[in-house]
Amino acid sequence: MSNQTVETSLRVRYAETDQMGIAYHANYLAWFEVGRTEWCRATGFTYRDMEQHEGIYLMVADAQCRYKAPARYDDVLIIKTKVNSFKKRLIVFGYEVLNRASGQLLATGETTHTVTDAEGHLRSLPEKYSKFFEG
Amino acid sequence: MSNQTVETSLRVRYAETDQMGIAYHANYLAWFEVGRTEWCRATGFTYRDMEQHEGIYLMVADAQCRYKAPARYDDVLIIKTKVNSFKKRLIVFGYEVLNRASGQLLATGETTHTVTDAEGHLRSLPEKYSKFFEG
Amino acid sequence: MSNQTVETSLRVRYAETDQMGIAYHANYLAWFEVGRTEWCRATGFTYRDMEQHEGIYLMVADAQCRYKAPARYDDVLIIKTKVNSFKKRLIVFGYEVLNRASGQLLATGETTHTVTDAEGHLRSLPEKYSKFFEG
Amino acid sequence: MSNQTVETSLRVRYAETDQMGIAYHANYLAWFEVGRTEWCRATGFTYRDMEQHEGIYLMVADAQCRYKAPARYDDVLIIKTKVNSFKKRLIVFGYEVLNRASGQLLATGETTHTVTDAEGHLRSLPEKYSKFFEG
Repeated sequence: MSNQTVETSLRVRYAETDQMGIAYHANYLAWFEVGRTEWCRATGFTYRDMEQHEGIYLMVADAQCRYKAPARYDDVLIIKTKVNSFKKRLIVFGYEVLNRASGQLLATGETTHTVTDAEGHLRSLPEKYSKFFEG
Repeated sequence: MSNQTVETSLRVRYAETDQMGIAYHANYLAWFEVGRTEWCRATGFTYRDMEQHEGIYLMVADAQCRYKAPARYDDVLIIKTKVNSFKKRLIVFGYEVLNRASGQLLATGETTHTVTDAEGHLRSLPEKYSKFFEG
Repeated sequence: MSNQTVETSLRVRYAETDQMGIAYHANYLAWFEVGRTEWCRATGFTYRDMEQHEGIYLMVADAQCRYKAPARYDDVLIIKTKVNSFKKRLIVFGYEVLNRASGQLLATGETTHTVTDAEGHLRSLPEKYSKFFEG
Repeated sequence: MSNQTVETSLRVRYAETDQMGIAYHANYLAWFEVGRTEWCRATGFTYRDMEQHEGIYLMVADAQCRYKAPARYDDVLIIKTKVNSFKKRLIVFGYEVLNRASGQLLATGETTHTVTDAEGHLRSLPEKYSKFFEG
């Protein structure tokens, strides 16, 4: 299984803050998805093409995030993404979110995905893509 | 042209606030869209069916919002939606957002829509739907 | 401990869909927060007042969602919210999301909250509010 | 008045798409805000510090966006931001959104801001910041 950890960075937007003065917690799931997109690209394929050309989707079946310290507007965050578990029908990604300036770990998370077609029916990940997960 | 004004209400979510302690300004465009959806339903059809069954889309070509007073978490808002202008290829909706408790006008806005198919090609709104706009 | 289950309903917005044609998974965390807000109101207090008047915040420490079936634009959802565990410094809410028309269970979830002040320092939930959780 | 145009780029997130398969129109306002943040940084100050240290806010009074062509998931966009008009109490920013790969202009927009304190009262932009707008 691929043990590649891919790092991507993003800056917290004003739109992502809430009245507590910190990044709203649901945004971390969207940031995880940014991490997945970049994991795919760094590993050798684009998630966009997999959807468009193969009709293969990684449907989110479960998402979990543990929040350790807040992210704030204009902070640059590092999203570290790796594959925690891989089967041809079930993929688990793991994430760490860090503050780039301080190195502090802000959150950890995990998302579980089933492989489906556009209608949501279970599929097996084609060899063309599974090779990237097998490493 | 239909002169029906449709009112719908919604409560400001924590997710919609920003660190200024007020509802983030981009949310008003999503609220306008809630207003359009309810305008359609109240007038006699559902926007969902028009997309799914007819392949007709009201693509946003222009959006404008003027902000007069802030909305805050847990405020109940009234969205008043009406049609400002109607042609079979171009529809303009107008909106007012009010605080339900105080009656204060918080924002006004307008969105302009072209009628398209799923690929974004210009279409003419079928009679089945145009009759609702013609009033 | 309170065993009250509070139901609230909401309609999926176009803004909440993604290109898979279903509600984007991060929105469920925002819907859970709508559920919490209404749990508080139904139980006897408002989360807004607790923040504004007491300076007490329920900081999200952990969030988890399991997705069983998709929600789609214009679907009406029922959010069922209850308290899974209560201590004066740590509160766990549990959620079920159902499609109102079909009764189908779409998702289940849980959020864990620490009680803090505005600066994020741990606090103990004042008696004024803890009574509602103790039931 | 400053005639500096600042370019920043961002990649369209899956979270930002809708069921039409394109970026949801309200996201452009959040992207404009990313553009403003980077305009400030490139010009010599940070919006974050202006809020935190001076208690000065640029409240959105009006926002307008004209959509010319859709943005899609994984597209890299260029946001060009400049100041269209500057007075010490009223600032107008202008934006262009382009597809980086094709160079196509996707949208243009404008946001008007009043200068306020944290409570929303009108202020005059302090010399410390106005010099950056005066160019």
